[in-house]
Parts: sequence; C-alpha cells; structure tokens
Amino acid sequence: MRWTIGATLRIAQAMTDARFGLDARVTLPGAFALDGGGELATIDVAYETYGTLAADRGNAVLVCHALTGDQYLASTHPRTGKPGWWARMVGPGKPIDTDRLFVICANVLGSCMGSSGPASIDPASGRPYAMTFPVITIRDMVRAQAALLDHLGIARLSAVVGGSMGGMQALSWAATYPERVRACVVIASAARHSAQNIAFHEVGRQAIMADPDWRGGDYYGGTPPTAGLAVARMAAHITYLSEAGLTAKFGRKLQARDAKTFGFDADFQVESYLRHQGLAFTDRFDANSYLYITRALDYFDLAEEHGGVLANAFLGTATRFCVVGFDTDWLYPTSESRTIVHALNAAGARASFVELRSPFGHDAFLLDSPELDRVMAGFLGAGA
Amino acid sequence: MRWTIGATLRIAQAMTDARFGLDARVTLPGAFALDGGGELATIDVAYETYGTLAADRGNAVLVCHALTGDQYLASTHPRTGKPGWWARMVGPGKPIDTDRLFVICANVLGSCMGSSGPASIDPASGRPYAMTFPVITIRDMVRAQAALLDHLGIARLSAVVGGSMGGMQALSWAATYPERVRACVVIASAARHSAQNIAFHEVGRQAIMADPDWRGGDYYGGTPPTAGLAVARMAAHITYLSEAGLTAKFGRKLQARDAKTFGFDADFQVESYLRHQGLAFTDRFDANSYLYITRALDYFDLAEEHGGVLANAFLGTATRFCVVGFDTDWLYPTSESRTIVHALNAAGARASFVELRSPFGHDAFLLDSPELDRVMAGFLGAGA
Repeated sequence: MRWTIGATLRIAQAMTDARFGLDARVTLPGAFALDGGGELATIDVAYETYGTLAADRGNAVLVCHALTGDQYLASTHPRTGKPGWWARMVGPGKPIDTDRLFVICANVLGSCMGSSGPASIDPASGRPYAMTFPVITIRDMVRAQAALLDHLGIARLSAVVGGSMGGMQALSWAATYPERVRACVVIASAARHSAQNIAFHEVGRQAIMADPDWRGGDYYGGTPPTAGLAVARMAAHITYLSEAGLTAKFGRKLQARDAKTFGFDADFQVESYLRHQGLAFTDRFDANSYLYITRALDYFDLAEEHGGVLANAFLGTATRFCVVGFDTDWLYPTSESRTIVHALNAAGARASFVELRSPFGHDAFLLDSPELDRVMAGFLGAGA
Repeated sequence: MRWTIGATLRIAQAMTDARFGLDARVTLPGAFALDGGGELATIDVAYETYGTLAADRGNAVLVCHALTGDQYLASTHPRTGKPGWWARMVGPGKPIDTDRLFVICANVLGSCMGSSGPASIDPASGRPYAMTFPVITIRDMVRAQAALLDHLGIARLSAVVGGSMGGMQALSWAATYPERVRACVVIASAARHSAQNIAFHEVGRQAIMADPDWRGGDYYGGTPPTAGLAVARMAAHITYLSEAGLTAKFGRKLQARDAKTFGFDADFQVESYLRHQGLAFTDRFDANSYLYITRALDYFDLAEEHGGVLANAFLGTATRFCVVGFDTDWLYPTSESRTIVHALNAAGARASFVELRSPFGHDAFLLDSPELDRVMAGFLGAGA
C-alpha cells in the first residue's frame, strides 16, 4: 500500500534529515472537538522543526502550509526526494532565519503526511477512517496546531506565517488565539473562498468521486483513484499559474517532434506539463485528503465566524500584520488582500500591505522572489 | 441508445419547427479532404435555415456555432426542448432580421447533431467511427460549410457571424474564402488558442478519457462516459463565467437548507449549479465529439496558417469586419480581439472594433445585451 511505503521512506529519510530538524509525530490524547460538532478521540500531528528554541521559548515561528503542502518546509520530502517547498525562504541566514528563529511546520489535520486524516486508522474500528473522517475547517487545523504548541511548551508565537491556505490559517490563528500571536504574515491569500474558488474545487472533487476506484472513499489497501485525483490536480494547477506566465513558459510550443500529430497525444508542451503535474501529484497525495482539505477551504469565511463583519475578527488585537499579494494571482487576487487590510484597519490593528509584481500568478509565493524575501526579513526582523 | 432516441425526437420536432425553418441534413458525396492529410469518403451536414433566400441569392447570412452549440440557432432544440441558443438575436425584426435575411446555421463537422462526427457510421466498416474519425480543424469545419453552400447554390455570403468558436470559423471563412464573404462578425473570440485555453481543454479531455466507460471511445451502443464528460463540462463552464458574475449570482449562498452540512453534498448553490450544468450537458452531447472539437480549437492558430503573420490572412480582402469583445471575458479576453483588429488594420481591411461592458464574462454573447444587438443590427444593416 502506497502510504505504508511512504511511511517507511519517511523513517529512512528522517535520519538523513537529522541535521536540519526533527521528523516527528505526536499523538495528542483527549477528545479533540471540531467546528462541525463532532470530535476525534485523539489526533496525530506530524511536524518538522528547524533552528533552536530559545531558553525563553520566545523565538518560535509557525509556518502553515498550503492545500497540497506538508511539514517538509525546508527539508527533503521523503516521498519525492525533492527539497522542502520553502527551502529558499527558511534556513540559516535566510529571510525566516533559523540561526535566530525556531521554525515549526505541522502537517494539517485532514492531510496525509502523518497528521490525522481520512487515511488514518480509526481507533474505534481499527480500519482507515476514509469518508467517516469528520469534515474539518481551517480553524480545526489551527486548533490542532495550537495543541501541538501546547505539547511543545510554546505559549506564544513570535510569528505565524503562511501563503495561500497557509495564509488563511495564519489569519485564523490571529483571530482565534490573538494572545498567542505577536506577528502574522498572510501571503497570496483571502479571508474567504469565492464562488469561483468553490467552483474549481467542486470540479476536482467531482473528478475524484467519478473515478470508480474511489469506491465511496474505501480504496485503502486497493487501487487508489489516481485518474480522478490527477484530473483534479490538473484543473487546480491551472489556477495556480497566470495566463501570461503560461504563455511565456509554453505558448503554443509543440513537443519535441515539432509537428501536430492530428491525434490525442500531448502535442502541446502545456498538455504534457499538465499531465505530468497531475500524475506526479498522485504519488504523494491521498485523494480523500484532497476532498477534505478542499472542503475546509470552501467553508472558510472568517467574517462569517464573526457576525459577518471581518473587522470583528481582529478587534482589540495587539498582533502586527503583514499582508502580501501578487498582481497576477487570479486565484486569490490582490483585491482579497485589500479586503483583509481594510478590515484590519477598521479594527485598529497594525497592518502593512505589499502588492508585489510577478508574472507567475498564485504560485509566485513559492518561487524566487527577492522582494518577498525582503518584505519577510524586514517584517520578522522588526521585533519578531 | 441515446443518439437514436435523439434522432427520433429530432424528426418529431422537425414538424413543429416547420414554421421556422428546415430541419435538414444533406450528404455531400465525394472525398472530403482534411487539413490533417486524410479524407472522409462523404460527409453529412445537418443545418437549419430561417427566412427566405432572395431571388438573387444575395441575402444569405451564415451563423457559426460555438463548441457545444448546434444548428438550432433560433428554433427549439429537439433534445432539450429549449429555445434556440440565439433566438433573441435571430428572427423577424431581430438584429439578424429574417424578414430580410436568409440565415443558415450548420452543425459543425465533428459534432453530434447530425453532421458527420465520431458517432457517425463509418461507411467502410458499418460501425461508428469513434476514435477512428480523423482529427479535424476549424478550417475543415469551414470547408464543410462551404460545401453546404455550394449544395444550396449560394456563391457569396452577405455575412458570416459567430461568437467564441463561431468567431474563429468566421475568421477562417474570411481568410479561406475572401471572395465569398462580404462581411464578417467576430464576437468574444480569438485568432488562436492560448496555452491557458489549451490547458483547460486538456483537463476536460483527460476527464473523459479517465472515465472507464469511455473505453477508448468505443462506447456507442453501451454506457457513455457520462461522469467524465460532466466533469469536463464543469471545468469549461467556469471559464465561460466571470469571477464577478459568479459572485453576483451565487457568492457563498448555501442551498435551501441554509446551513453547512459538514459533508460532501452540494452545500453551496454554485456547486449545485455546476453539477447540474455538467449532467444536463451529457444528455445532449457526445463525449467523443467533445474530444474532437476541443482538439480542433486547440489546433486553431490563424497566423500559423499564413506564415506566422496574422495580417497575411487578410491581405487584399474586400470583406468588412466587425470585432466585438466583452470586458469580463477571460476565456478570450478583449486583448485577443485587439490582436485581430491590429492584424486587419495592418492588412488594410475595413474593420471596426467594439469592446462591450458586461458582468457575465465569455457567456455575455449569448445573453441579453442591447449593445450587442445594436452593433449587430447596425453592422448588418450597413450594406449587408
């Protein structure tokens, strides 16, 4: 079974990663209550850390990952062998400087890299939860991270930082635990999912559920719904890139044979690229986790949790905020960042807003961006 | 089998439609050569007409339909029972005025409403072509329409008009048969498919091909790949609507029960709407036709057919052009319309360009738009 192989690899890789951090998982006992009304008897939280926790425990930074991200922030991914997804941002002397800061990144609740999710064993049945796993929210993810910090003895974060869904968690952290967050960095994100965001996710979910191998989610131990998950990833991947970026990278360039085949092979480079993105994703991600996490994103509406007024989420906060958007991001456009900043201003919070130019759309936050590096280093350096 | 039922309905409906026009199909004998190098032994072209052909045969207007459109331009669709897709535009006293003009709309080659396509019987085998149907181009569709006009004895069109893929056919008409086209109206269209356009289509094709019921295209007489086709339609449908339009129409509104279910039902109205769009589409469209027509669209690059210079497609033309774009169309943005107009200007062609405001994105050309009506009536009235 894929996940068992992954776990074995994970353990093997943990040793080579020892220099960078921990490859740790903790089981947090006691009923974990959920926004949906249910509870989990216990939860596992898998996490990585980088740097050294100061004696006063005051230098901890929590980085929250995106939909398909994981805790391998700045260390080699055990399944893909690739560098951490934000290795350019986090490390000694880097903008999130592990010479100075203790950086934690936890796999979100509902995911598939060690934290509790639909692929986890339900202690009540001894079998994978599959679709009996409760539907979770972004705030549930945040509460699980808070429980992890309790376990680690960290009362207060120097900063919480996240891009995309990570930015939503950062916002939810600041709203849910204002006394535990000194600074909050929200990148390429939004305070709620739009109708278009929901629509794209629904396409992905329907693609997964239409795959006969999905079998109502009960595919563990059998063949996973690879084809459906690949289609879901392909559709989502388009939203991560700008039209101009796709044109610059691929345009209408043909594959190596350099002529149209008048068939249905991947004639255009962009087709081949998308197919690869879809298939590669299925090697590292669980389809049911994709269903649960997209659902959590679609449910996210921070204003709704606060009487319909976003500013109410931040009333009286002492947290400093930094909100960053990219001009070509059409998944979470900069207008969404401005909505957040207006709410922060209305709440009297200290907030700065930076709109960066990039040709790369939503994915820009993961790519080389000296301006983002400067913003991050400057904001975290100013008292974080 | 679905298509047989459809054909029966079509014949029944033809009688009720008699007042409006013909429900006709013609078999055009003789080898039909294709851009891909192959040929079809004969082709069928199904078409509808509205109005009366003048004695001098000089009042014919060809309207070209979009990807999933058909010849039921202004008459009831035989499968869905819905009004024609452009009934608001075409009819007595309407902008395309059938009191004055003889309007023809033909089902495109490769489609599934009576013209030859993958669901048609291959005379060589006596079985449906399925994936042995040759890959076709937009220009092949245009050549089939030209053959129909030859059959009808119409040497020259007063105008060719089309939106979206119909606009591409209109451009291809003007470039391929300049002497047969007095005026050309291109709405919400482009002179070539962008990398993002191709990417969305590839998602749809992969969704269809991932459906086990697709069976390499050999599903006629059995269960068609409904689930895959529905996902393809859902993904495409998002691109037909603007983000602002989706927000205005649905926002984050929940279904009637008015509370989140914390499950995977269609909680949000936009989910329910998309699912309906996907499923309804499968009742009237053949999955293989979707593969072939999206392929033709992706291959479309009018400049490439003319030495890489779009203006060369129109050198020396006497055709008058009217190019219309909608400001919120992100499938074929108005920048694509401008590219066409610049090429027309460079070729010395008579061209007007109108950018219309609409909240509805690409779909605006199908919806109520008094400005579009005025532009159309004015342009066709001025000597068409």
